Amino acid sequence: MESLIRKNIQDLVAYKVDAPQYEIIVNANESPYDFPMILKRQFTDDICNTDLNRYPEACFPELLNELSAYTGVPTDGIICGSGSDELIAMINQAFVNAGDVVVSHSPSFDMYNIWAKISDSKHIRILDLPGHIPDVDGIIKAACDNHAKLLYICNPNNPTGYTFAKKDIIKILDAVPSLVVLDEAYIEFFGESDVDLLPNYPRLLILRTLSKAFGLAGIRCGYALGNKNIIDVLYKVKAPYNLNVLTQKMAVIALQNRDKVFKNLEEIKAEREKAMAVLKELPSLTVYPSGANFIYFETPFAEKIYEVLLNRSILIKRFKETGSCPESIRFSIGKPKENQKILEIIKEVVYNEA
Amino acid sequence: MESLIRKNIQDLVAYKVDAPQYEIIVNANESPYDFPMILKRQFTDDICNTDLNRYPEACFPELLNELSAYTGVPTDGIICGSGSDELIAMINQAFVNAGDVVVSHSPSFDMYNIWAKISDSKHIRILDLPGHIPDVDGIIKAACDNHAKLLYICNPNNPTGYTFAKKDIIKILDAVPSLVVLDEAYIEFFGESDVDLLPNYPRLLILRTLSKAFGLAGIRCGYALGNKNIIDVLYKVKAPYNLNVLTQKMAVIALQNRDKVFKNLEEIKAEREKAMAVLKELPSLTVYPSGANFIYFETPFAEKIYEVLLNRSILIKRFKETGSCPESIRFSIGKPKENQKILEIIKEVVYNEA
Repeated sequence: MESLIRKNIQDLVAYKVDAPQYEIIVNANESPYDFPMILKRQFTDDICNTDLNRYPEACFPELLNELSAYTGVPTDGIICGSGSDELIAMINQAFVNAGDVVVSHSPSFDMYNIWAKISDSKHIRILDLPGHIPDVDGIIKAACDNHAKLLYICNPNNPTGYTFAKKDIIKILDAVPSLVVLDEAYIEFFGESDVDLLPNYPRLLILRTLSKAFGLAGIRCGYALGNKNIIDVLYKVKAPYNLNVLTQKMAVIALQNRDKVFKNLEEIKAEREKAMAVLKELPSLTVYPSGANFIYFETPFAEKIYEVLLNRSILIKRFKETGSCPESIRFSIGKPKENQKILEIIKEVVYNEA
Repeated sequence: MESLIRKNIQDLVAYKVDAPQYEIIVNANESPYDFPMILKRQFTDDICNTDLNRYPEACFPELLNELSAYTGVPTDGIICGSGSDELIAMINQAFVNAGDVVVSHSPSFDMYNIWAKISDSKHIRILDLPGHIPDVDGIIKAACDNHAKLLYICNPNNPTGYTFAKKDIIKILDAVPSLVVLDEAYIEFFGESDVDLLPNYPRLLILRTLSKAFGLAGIRCGYALGNKNIIDVLYKVKAPYNLNVLTQKMAVIALQNRDKVFKNLEEIKAEREKAMAVLKELPSLTVYPSGANFIYFETPFAEKIYEVLLNRSILIKRFKETGSCPESIRFSIGKPKENQKILEIIKEVVYNEA
C-alpha cells in the first residue's frame, strides 16, 4: 500500500485533535461570543421549512447577493467554500502544478504550506524583517526570480497581527507575475480592506471568512473575491455542491444582520489595546502591534506561560522556537473578564521568572 | 492570466446551475421525502445549545461512533467529508500523481472523470458489455497492464443501476495492484454491501453517503470506510475542519434514528419494481435492472420524453448519445403519485412516436 501513496504526502501530519475542553479557549482566534440566539431561532425556523432531501444550490445565489451587498463586489466575482481552507485548495487545484513555486512572507498561516505540500509545489518563505515587518522587497524578488505561480499576503497577518499599508500591496501587485492571494480573514478588525484594488488588478484574489468577525467558525463559510475571469476558473474545480444548505442559510442570516453580529467588534478592539498596554509594561516580552482579534508576543517564558495557563484551564496558542522565530505566544481576545484573568496569570509568571 | 491556469483544468466546465424549480424533481437520485419534522426539531434544539463561534470537531468523534455502530467498521477505519465528492478529492490528492492511470467501468459516476482531469491523470474507461454488464475482465486487464493507481467500482452503478456480484468484486480485488474505490452511495437500496471484505483487503476503500437513502442531500455528508492504514493517509490531506458542526449534528441524529429515516426504503423499492414492469411493456425501450432508487433506460425517444415531461414541470435526467451509449434516460423513484404521472406521460410519448 505504501508504494501507492504520493511521495509529497508522506510527511504531512494529520490534524487529529479533539475540540478543546477548557474554561477559557483563546487558541484559535474565534469570537468569544456565541452567535445571537434570536438569529439562531431565525435559522431553525428556516430549516423547518427547507427540503433537506434536495441538493443545495450549487452556486448559492442568495448568499452571493448578500456577500455582494456586504463587499461591493459583483456576484460574478464571488465564490464560496467550506472555510478559506477550501478556497486555498481550489486555488491550488486550478493554478499550481507539481514543481511550481509559491511565495509567502513568514511566519504566516499554516495552510499555505500544507497546500504547497499537497500540490507538490516549492514554497519559498521570506522571513520577516526585524519587528516582524514583512520583507516586501524580498517577497517581490522571490516571486519574480522564480516566476512564482502564487504569492500569499495575509493582512492582518496570522500570527503576528501585522497590517500591510495599501501602498505595499500595490507595490507587490505591480511587480510580480503571480496570482496574488490576499488573505483578509481578519479584515473586519482592521477595517482597511484592499477590495477597492480588484477592478485594476485582474490577478488579485481576496480571501474572506465568516469564522472570525462574524463569529461563525462552526459553520465553515469562506469566500473569495476577484474579477469574473479568475473566479470562473475556480468554479471549474469547485465540487458541484460544495456548500451545504445549512451553512448557506445561516450565512445569509449573518450577513443580513451584520449590524447585530458586529456589535462586539469595538469591544474586542478596545480590549486588545488594553491588553497590549498591559503586556508592553512587562519585562522579557516583545509585543507586536495587532490589527486582528489576537495578540502575538515573543518571550523566553513562553513554555512556562503556556503551562501555567493550561493548569488553570486556559488554552492559548504557543509557537516553539524555529529557525525563523523565537518562542512565542498568540492568544485571541476573549470576553473582558477572560482577558483580565489571562493577563494576571501572564504577569504572575513573568515576574516569577524574570 | 490565462498562462497561470493549469492546462488540465482549461477544458473543465463549471457546474453552474440553479436549483431546479419544477413540480416533480427526479433528476438527481434524491429521496422524494423530506427529512422527518420531528428529527428536524431535535436538530434545531441542538443548534440552540451549540456554540457556533467555535470551530467544529476536527475528527467528528460522535459521528464516527454512530457510523461505526451502523456499518460495523471500527472508528479508526472511517473518515467523513462534504459528500462523497470531497472523499474522491482527498483520494486523488493522497494517491494520484499527474500522469498516473485511473480505471473505471463506463458509463458511471461523472465525478471520477472530473477528478481525473483535476489530478491530471489518465482515465481509462472500460465500456460495459451488452446489457450494461461491466466488463470485469477488461477492467482487470486495464488496471494491471497500466499499473493503475485507482480503480473505481460503483455498486449499484450510477446511472445504469447494475449491481455487482460479490465474487466479481473479489475477483477484481485479488487481481489488481490498485487502490480499489468501491462506491456504495446507493447500497441501502440494494442491501448487499461488501463492507465484510475490508478486513481482508487493505487496498479497498468503500464510499458511502447520507445523500440518498438517508434523505439528506442538503447537508453534504459522505464517508469512507477502510483499514486504519489507508484512512490515516486520507486524514493527512483532510482540511482540519472539513465538516461543519451543523452537518455533524444532523448526521448524528439521522444515524441514531435510522429506523425512522429508512421507513420509506421498502416503498421506494416496491415502486421501482412496479415502474420497471410498466416500462418493460413499452416498445422501443431497453430497460435495465436496477438495485438503486432510480431506473435507467435507452430509447430513441429520449429527447421527446425529456421535453414533454419538462413541459409538464417534471425534471428527469437525460443522457445524450455518446460513442459508448445511445440516447438514454434516468429518473429517480418519486412518491407513488409522481411515479404514476411520469409513467403515464412516458407511455403517451412512446405510443405517439412508435
